[in-house]
Amino acid sequence: MESLLQQSRAMCPFLKRTSPSSLRTLATATRPSISSGGGTMSNLQVIARRCPVMSKALAVQSARMIGTKRFASCAAGVAALSNKHGRSPTGKRALHSTSGNGANVSAEIYKNTQRDPASFSKIKTPSNATAAAATPHARPDAPVAKPFNYNAFYNTELEKKHKDKSYRYFNNINRLAQEFPRAHTTSVEERVTVWCSNDYLGMGSNPEVLATMHKTLDTYGAGAGGTRNISGHNQHAVGLENTLSKLHGKEAALVFSSCFVANDATLATLGSKMPDCVILSDSLNHASMIQGIRHSGAKKMVFKHNDLVDLETKLASLPLHVPKIIAFESVYSMCGSIAPIEKICDLADKYGAITFLDEVHAVGMYGPHGAGVAEHLDYDIYASQDTANPRSTKGTVMDRIDIITGTLGKAYGCVGGYIAGSAAMVDTIRSLAPGFIFTTSLPPATMAGADAAIQYQSRHQGDRVLQQLHTRAVKSAFKELDIPVIPNPSHIIPLLVGDAEVAKTASDKLLEEHGIYVQAINYPTVPRGEERLRITPTPGHVKKHRDHLVQAVETVWNELSIKRTSDWEAQGGFVGVGVEGAEAENQPIWDNVQLGLKENEAIEAAVEREFAAAPAAAAVGVAA
Amino acid sequence: MESLLQQSRAMCPFLKRTSPSSLRTLATATRPSISSGGGTMSNLQVIARRCPVMSKALAVQSARMIGTKRFASCAAGVAALSNKHGRSPTGKRALHSTSGNGANVSAEIYKNTQRDPASFSKIKTPSNATAAAATPHARPDAPVAKPFNYNAFYNTELEKKHKDKSYRYFNNINRLAQEFPRAHTTSVEERVTVWCSNDYLGMGSNPEVLATMHKTLDTYGAGAGGTRNISGHNQHAVGLENTLSKLHGKEAALVFSSCFVANDATLATLGSKMPDCVILSDSLNHASMIQGIRHSGAKKMVFKHNDLVDLETKLASLPLHVPKIIAFESVYSMCGSIAPIEKICDLADKYGAITFLDEVHAVGMYGPHGAGVAEHLDYDIYASQDTANPRSTKGTVMDRIDIITGTLGKAYGCVGGYIAGSAAMVDTIRSLAPGFIFTTSLPPATMAGADAAIQYQSRHQGDRVLQQLHTRAVKSAFKELDIPVIPNPSHIIPLLVGDAEVAKTASDKLLEEHGIYVQAINYPTVPRGEERLRITPTPGHVKKHRDHLVQAVETVWNELSIKRTSDWEAQGGFVGVGVEGAEAENQPIWDNVQLGLKENEAIEAAVEREFAAAPAAAAVGVAA
Repeated sequence: MESLLQQSRAMCPFLKRTSPSSLRTLATATRPSISSGGGTMSNLQVIARRCPVMSKALAVQSARMIGTKRFASCAAGVAALSNKHGRSPTGKRALHSTSGNGANVSAEIYKNTQRDPASFSKIKTPSNATAAAATPHARPDAPVAKPFNYNAFYNTELEKKHKDKSYRYFNNINRLAQEFPRAHTTSVEERVTVWCSNDYLGMGSNPEVLATMHKTLDTYGAGAGGTRNISGHNQHAVGLENTLSKLHGKEAALVFSSCFVANDATLATLGSKMPDCVILSDSLNHASMIQGIRHSGAKKMVFKHNDLVDLETKLASLPLHVPKIIAFESVYSMCGSIAPIEKICDLADKYGAITFLDEVHAVGMYGPHGAGVAEHLDYDIYASQDTANPRSTKGTVMDRIDIITGTLGKAYGCVGGYIAGSAAMVDTIRSLAPGFIFTTSLPPATMAGADAAIQYQSRHQGDRVLQQLHTRAVKSAFKELDIPVIPNPSHIIPLLVGDAEVAKTASDKLLEEHGIYVQAINYPTVPRGEERLRITPTPGHVKKHRDHLVQAVETVWNELSIKRTSDWEAQGGFVGVGVEGAEAENQPIWDNVQLGLKENEAIEAAVEREFAAAPAAAAVGVAA
Repeated sequence: MESLLQQSRAMCPFLKRTSPSSLRTLATATRPSISSGGGTMSNLQVIARRCPVMSKALAVQSARMIGTKRFASCAAGVAALSNKHGRSPTGKRALHSTSGNGANVSAEIYKNTQRDPASFSKIKTPSNATAAAATPHARPDAPVAKPFNYNAFYNTELEKKHKDKSYRYFNNINRLAQEFPRAHTTSVEERVTVWCSNDYLGMGSNPEVLATMHKTLDTYGAGAGGTRNISGHNQHAVGLENTLSKLHGKEAALVFSSCFVANDATLATLGSKMPDCVILSDSLNHASMIQGIRHSGAKKMVFKHNDLVDLETKLASLPLHVPKIIAFESVYSMCGSIAPIEKICDLADKYGAITFLDEVHAVGMYGPHGAGVAEHLDYDIYASQDTANPRSTKGTVMDRIDIITGTLGKAYGCVGGYIAGSAAMVDTIRSLAPGFIFTTSLPPATMAGADAAIQYQSRHQGDRVLQQLHTRAVKSAFKELDIPVIPNPSHIIPLLVGDAEVAKTASDKLLEEHGIYVQAINYPTVPRGEERLRITPTPGHVKKHRDHLVQAVETVWNELSIKRTSDWEAQGGFVGVGVEGAEAENQPIWDNVQLGLKENEAIEAAVEREFAAAPAAAAVGVAA
């Protein structure tokens, strides 16, 4: 009951503004009814009749009692009253104003009143209520009030995290550009191999990227020096957004501090501005999208992960004219699953929705230019764009997506995020989203470096191919050893552990005893019981790294007696592990032809050929 | 009415979930009342009675009609029902789950219903409502439904911005590190002097900062490669947070992508987690704090800008035991005013509140180590920290502040933001704030560069002193020319224009005809009628730049016939301009002694002396 009350108080603008004593006063003070029926109403009834929910409830109740005619005219009266007073409780306001927004508390309401939270769950009789309202001082039996204990609050919150094993301990890992994918720990001498970074292609140490950044740093300095509107707009922003819009075949793009901010700001803005907007959100969507949807205040429908039937049921339940955003990801980073993007576009068309696709874990790595999975789905068409006779991209999956979001901080090796789409959509977000408007631009060197990384990856296929070959090699080695990989068609290798403490111990043992850094992924990033080690091979993870990883994981799996694939299979399978047919359904999205694999060619042979053919890519990892 | 409805729909969890036809069905379907009085209730009444607001309204209404006794037992019944069903509409949920949160829409409710928005404002008679509920198909007279027109929506939003002159045109300004404070425009050859950057001390081109960044870039690469929890935590984060906690004399600090994110995430987390939290917010607070407060869902009380009486009235109206956060800034960037920090601490102590102080426009520039205005208020105590006999800092203003937030992107010349405070508070935000947890860390080179900038500024007083001397010189020159500076005690020089179009024209003329870049600040950044040009002198704005600025502004003021200080004075004064005593009340917070000004010494003489004494500071601007 207490939590229900707290939640209701958080949601209801009226309740938020009103103390129990005021409610009592409102409920007992009367004014002449403006309805044609005459009589008196309590002030609380007057307010209740302005509420679109409760006015109906009250109206129906009145109608039951005194007939349809009076109900109808009374309702009209409520509407008239509401218009006359024009007191929209959450009307728009300037950012800077003392008038506040709908969540404001009036000072008078609380004045000289020790609020008793328990009074919310007890309904007093009118006579008691009147007495309380007339006596604004604390009741004689009220406990002596003390200030809120802030430290106790912090410690309780932290204790909860410790208790449910979700408290995070950060590992000090210093990734070395010249020794990618190696890093040093707190000790500068101690080396570990990083197997869980999102610098998926090693672009953070790419010579072209670094050279560009050094040059930009010297010429244009460390920071942008302002928001985009006030001295923080420059040729690097223009150039980067131009590159991004071209990459995704869109009219425009907009860069943010991060893709967390891009997702949050874009969904919050669209969801709050489009009237009656409904956002349909995949159940495994990233926290940034969940936050953006919550901040939008829009209606949200969560559809089952990658479930077209569930999505269609929900879309079909909505009126055609209502604005709808289908928000989803291409590659889901914790399980490596890939969305049925094309079919989601079909549903969007059928039901008048727009698509919002997060390609954060795909840009740089899929498609012939690294534009992501949407590009990859029309691989041949986009590959032909580099030839003398490019094919039309009209109607391709990437072309059909309305809003693509991506990051500059993972496969592109820098930091920042972006959206791409129609010029009008991008300009709307640019003009309305506080998270874009009121923040310092990314540094010129960061934008220039990211721009160089995107352009490099749009010209070079080698890193992507090597990443996929290394992924195949590691997945295949684990399969032979009966180590449980959650099947998926992407570059992510999630090893199922199924217990928070065991996952942390396995991660610690790999780091301390084998010099291998793979972070344990526990609740709330994944559901309880699905704890895992998440491995991300890069072009730099050459054979010796891979052999070392596989041997170390095998050792740790033995030492901790972690379940094998066959164990999960014996239990009927879990999250795809030990499930018959799961692997067949999850064939790599990069197929053999796209990878240049010859028939029956061994992965290692292909890797060697690729290294020989792509010296730039080969440079990565050679020093290690 | 329409906007009231939209707002109510956005706020009320019940209305959000429910279509008009469902409301009609709920209002006409009945179930036996569980109250001791027997009889039937409509399902809508049952739901209404679960609402803490409406249950009271209904209960009072019942009591009026059928006596106190039945009312009380009925209310108890409602509470029992609510507990029995346990259907908290907004219960907590895991981040990843198909169950959604309180804003979810049930698919069934909308099914096969073309929702007619107009029906919300018309209350139908029960008989009509029943008919509609029994006929789930669209009514014969319903208009043919069309999908939402997304492009029209975007264009309408943009049209609004154009109409109210708040549409932003970005200026392409490329600040040159070797020619600070000069920049080139779209053309690499064309030079302008930047007079509105927030690179307040020129640290973006500081040689120590740049050398640190180059070295870090070479050794550790371009990006962090992950979130803080997954491979993005490193010695640079540890070092920077250590430096920040020492700077502010706090136990701990935490770095974010930006201070927008730091403010948003921290206020949203604290406000939503502390039970019944009330956030008291200065009326001129930055958009990031406003957004954080809104996202927290906490109650908000806006107090008049820097008004201690209003703040105390609001604090006194709240029960002592309720958690309260006073959120405010030290230097308000658009008017340059400074908060009465110490007195706000006194009020916080008196009423059991914590203080949340945004020092974004102060860090680097105030206090003997650049820790901000809070440090500056105990200048001598903190200055003595560098001596052999440091004085205790216990009980200083900075020590008393609970949460300090700051930026690495303005006076420190890089990018990023942070909070500093008690270890438990910082650990709580670290553990709970999605905007911190689920985002890529800042790049190692950025963190190292910011760390170098903070340490440099904590050792060197020269840049701060020069900035203040230049500010005094420019303010004084404008005063002599009757050009209206909004009086304030800080480094900000806001020139009052008072009209959006004139402000933009003045800014354009300065740029195009005089090679001076000063952005016009219009609504919604400042209220309508208070449009201004905002000038920010730096240590690099040497005499020739200042003379040029003053002469150019004088020319533009003449050409556009913009009001002078005496004009405003004749009208009775406005926002401090032409107000008697306003200047005396706004003496610079950096006093003559702190600046090393000798009695009757001319500013320019002091500037020259300062340049001679501080060769590092003098290096800035010399090339220009």
